[in-house]
Amino acid sequence: MKLEVLTIGTELLLGHTVDTNAAELGRALAAAGAEIVRRTTVPDRPDVIRAAVAEALDRTGFVITTGGLGPTRDDMTKTVVAELLDKRLVLDERLLAAVVERFQRMGRPMPAINRTQAQVPEGAVVLPNPRGTAPGLWVEDGRGRVVVLLPGVPREMRGLLVEHVLPRLVERQGPDARRVVQSRTVRTTGVSESALAERVGDIEAEIAPLTLAYLPSVEGVDLRVTAWALEPAEAEQRIAAAVERLRIAADGHAYGTDNADLAAVVLETLRRGRHRLGVAESCTGGMIAERITAIPGASDTFIGGVVAYADVIKTAALKVPLETLEAHGAVSEETVRAMADGAQRLFSVDCTIAVTGIAGPGGGTPEKPVGTVWLAARVHTTTRAVKRVFPGDRDEIRRRAAQAGLDLLRRLVVEP
Amino acid sequence: MKLEVLTIGTELLLGHTVDTNAAELGRALAAAGAEIVRRTTVPDRPDVIRAAVAEALDRTGFVITTGGLGPTRDDMTKTVVAELLDKRLVLDERLLAAVVERFQRMGRPMPAINRTQAQVPEGAVVLPNPRGTAPGLWVEDGRGRVVVLLPGVPREMRGLLVEHVLPRLVERQGPDARRVVQSRTVRTTGVSESALAERVGDIEAEIAPLTLAYLPSVEGVDLRVTAWALEPAEAEQRIAAAVERLRIAADGHAYGTDNADLAAVVLETLRRGRHRLGVAESCTGGMIAERITAIPGASDTFIGGVVAYADVIKTAALKVPLETLEAHGAVSEETVRAMADGAQRLFSVDCTIAVTGIAGPGGGTPEKPVGTVWLAARVHTTTRAVKRVFPGDRDEIRRRAAQAGLDLLRRLVVEP
Repeated sequence: MKLEVLTIGTELLLGHTVDTNAAELGRALAAAGAEIVRRTTVPDRPDVIRAAVAEALDRTGFVITTGGLGPTRDDMTKTVVAELLDKRLVLDERLLAAVVERFQRMGRPMPAINRTQAQVPEGAVVLPNPRGTAPGLWVEDGRGRVVVLLPGVPREMRGLLVEHVLPRLVERQGPDARRVVQSRTVRTTGVSESALAERVGDIEAEIAPLTLAYLPSVEGVDLRVTAWALEPAEAEQRIAAAVERLRIAADGHAYGTDNADLAAVVLETLRRGRHRLGVAESCTGGMIAERITAIPGASDTFIGGVVAYADVIKTAALKVPLETLEAHGAVSEETVRAMADGAQRLFSVDCTIAVTGIAGPGGGTPEKPVGTVWLAARVHTTTRAVKRVFPGDRDEIRRRAAQAGLDLLRRLVVEP
Repeated sequence: MKLEVLTIGTELLLGHTVDTNAAELGRALAAAGAEIVRRTTVPDRPDVIRAAVAEALDRTGFVITTGGLGPTRDDMTKTVVAELLDKRLVLDERLLAAVVERFQRMGRPMPAINRTQAQVPEGAVVLPNPRGTAPGLWVEDGRGRVVVLLPGVPREMRGLLVEHVLPRLVERQGPDARRVVQSRTVRTTGVSESALAERVGDIEAEIAPLTLAYLPSVEGVDLRVTAWALEPAEAEQRIAAAVERLRIAADGHAYGTDNADLAAVVLETLRRGRHRLGVAESCTGGMIAERITAIPGASDTFIGGVVAYADVIKTAALKVPLETLEAHGAVSEETVRAMADGAQRLFSVDCTIAVTGIAGPGGGTPEKPVGTVWLAARVHTTTRAVKRVFPGDRDEIRRRAAQAGLDLLRRLVVEP
C-alpha cells in the first residue's frame, strides 16, 4: 500500500531540529509493507497543514502525521483533520480523566483550556501513549480514507508506531503485505569505494533484478542489496545468495551485515576466544574505549583503557621508553608498539589496541601531516602495526582511526 | 522571500539515510532571509519529481532541490527541470572538459553516456563543485521562476550553498533580506524542563513578541528565543535582553549560548585558570575524555584519562583501596572520591572528574538500580561528590552521566 507522511513543525523547517522521525518511520513502514511515496514538512500553521493533508489524502488516501500534538498546539492538527474528514470533535471521558489526574499529580488546578486536550474526532481510535501526554489518533472516514496522528517526540512516536500503528497497517493490507521491499547490508571497512567497486562490480549485473547500492561513510562502505516486490521466500533466498557473494568478494573487509557495529563484532570475537582487552589511546582520546563500553556486557571482556594524551602519561602509565619518544616521536611505529605492549602489562590482558596520531587542525609537519595515525593491535606476543594518513577534519580523522584500530585487532584475531 | 525545498532520494524515504541536509538548509536559508514554507521528499522517479517541482513552483516560484544529481542518476532531475522551465539541454564545453579530464586521471576511456553529465539547461548558471563530480545548477526562466539543483552529498551541498547559493539569494532579495528571523539559545543542564519552567516561565509573556521554546534533550534543556520579522537592530537588542534575563533566571544551570558545547566550556574555563585536567571513568567508558579531546587544542589542558572498567584497574591504576571497594562497592561516594584522588596523583594535575555507575541493562539492585551514578569533581584539595539516578537506556544514562560529570567540575571551578 502507498501512503504519505506529513511532518509538522516550524522548528524542523528552520533546521533547529534534525528530523530523525522521518528515517525511523521510513524503515518501519517499509518493513510493514507500506511504501512512503512522499514526505512533506510544513510549519505549525493550520492553513498550510490543512492544504498538505488534503493534497496527500487526494493522492494516496492514507496519511501519517507527526508533531503538532503538544499541549500548546494540541488543537491544530486534530481540528484540521476532523474538519477534512467531516467529523465533529467530541470529549473522550477517559482522556479527560487522564488529563485531570495529571494536573492532580502536579498539585495544580486544571485550566479550562486543557479540556480541549481530551477532545477527539468522533469515531477516532485513541492510541494510548504511556510515554507522553498527547495520545495518538487513528481517524478513518466513510470512504476508507485514514489519517493517523502521532506526536513529534521521537520516543513517543516510536512507541505508538510499533505498538499500535504497524499492527493495524499489516492487518489492513492483508496477505499481500508480505510481498514487499527487503534489503540487507554488507558492512565493510578499510577499503575505498572505488577499490571495493573493482572487487564487487561484476556482481551488480548478475544479481539483477536485485539492486546494489554503495553507501560510503567515515566508518567504511556499506553495500546494500535490495529486492523489490518479490515473493518473500524468493526475495530472501536471492538476497542471501547475493550477500554471500559480496561478502566473499569483499574479502577480509566485510565485518558484518545490516546494523552490525564493529565494536560489538570485535567484542563478540574476543569473548568467543576468551580474550581480554585493554586499550591505549592518544589521538582518539577515549573513543575506542567508549565504543566498546557502549555494548551491554562489555565488562566481561574489556578491562580498561588509558587515554595517554600527554607524552608524560605515555611514559608514566604505559612505560613507553623516553628514548623511544625522543628518537622517533609520539606518532611512530616504535611508540605505538610500545603503547600496545604497555597496555598489555598495565591491564594484564592478552589483547590490546593502541593508537597515536595527529588529528589536527594543528600539529602537522611535512613528514607527518595532519591525519597521520599509527595503529597497533597485539594478541599474546604478536603485534601488527600499520600507518594510515586519514582525510577529513579532526572529528573524521578520530572516527576513522578508532574504526581502523578496532578492525586491526579483529583481523589479527580472525586471520592471525 | 518564500521558497520550497525538494529532497530527492528513495533511500531517504526508506529511512536508510537520515536527511541532515534538510536541517542545514533550513538554518542557512533562514539566516539569509529566506523562509522555507514547505519541504518535500520524493523518490528517484522522474514523474514524481516532475509533479513535485511543478507544484512547488506554482506555490512559491522558487525551488531548491538536493540529490538526484549523481553520475548514474544525472539526467533525471536536470531533464525534468529543463522541460518544466521550457529549456533545451545544451552541452557545456567546460563541464565536458572536466569530465574528460576526470576519466584521464583514472586512466580509463570515457563511455559515451558520460557526455550527458556535461549537459545543462540552456542559460543555466553552473555552480562549480570542487568537492564532487556533479556541479550545482541555477536555472531561471523568463517569468523569474528559479530552480536551484544541488547534489545530495552533504559536504558538496554545504559547499555550494555557502559559496554560491546564499550570496545569490541575498542579492536577489535586496535590502529587505536583513529583516529576518533571528534566534539565540541559552543552554542549561542539570535541571528538568518543568523545574526550569518554574524559574523562567514568567519571562515568556514579558518578552513578547519574541517567542520562547523549551528544547529538552539528554544533555539538558535549551531555551530558544526567536524574533520574527523585526528590524535587525531591534531584534538583536531584544534578543540580547531576553537572553540575559533567562541566563540569570536559570542560575548556575546556564552554561552557554547557541552551539556552546559543555566540554569546550569546561576546557576554556580550565585554560583561563591555568588548570590541568585528568579523568577517571568507569560507566562512561571514555566518553568524558572523548568529548574533551574532540576540542582542538585540548592537549594544553587535558593530560589524560583512565577507563577503570574492571575493579582491578580502579585499585591498580587509581589506587582505590581494596577495602573501600569491598566495604562500599564500586558505585559509592567513597569509591568515586578515591577515584578522583587517584586520578589527581596519577596524572599530576590539579583538577579531576571521576564517574562510577550502573549503565545497565544488567547490574542493578533494589538499593542501586540501573541509572545510579556517583560523580566527583576535584580541584586542588576540594572534592565535590553527588549521586544521581538517571532515566533512560544504557546510551542515555552514559551520556547524561558524562554531561553531569563535566558540569560538576564547571560549577566547582566557577562557584568554589
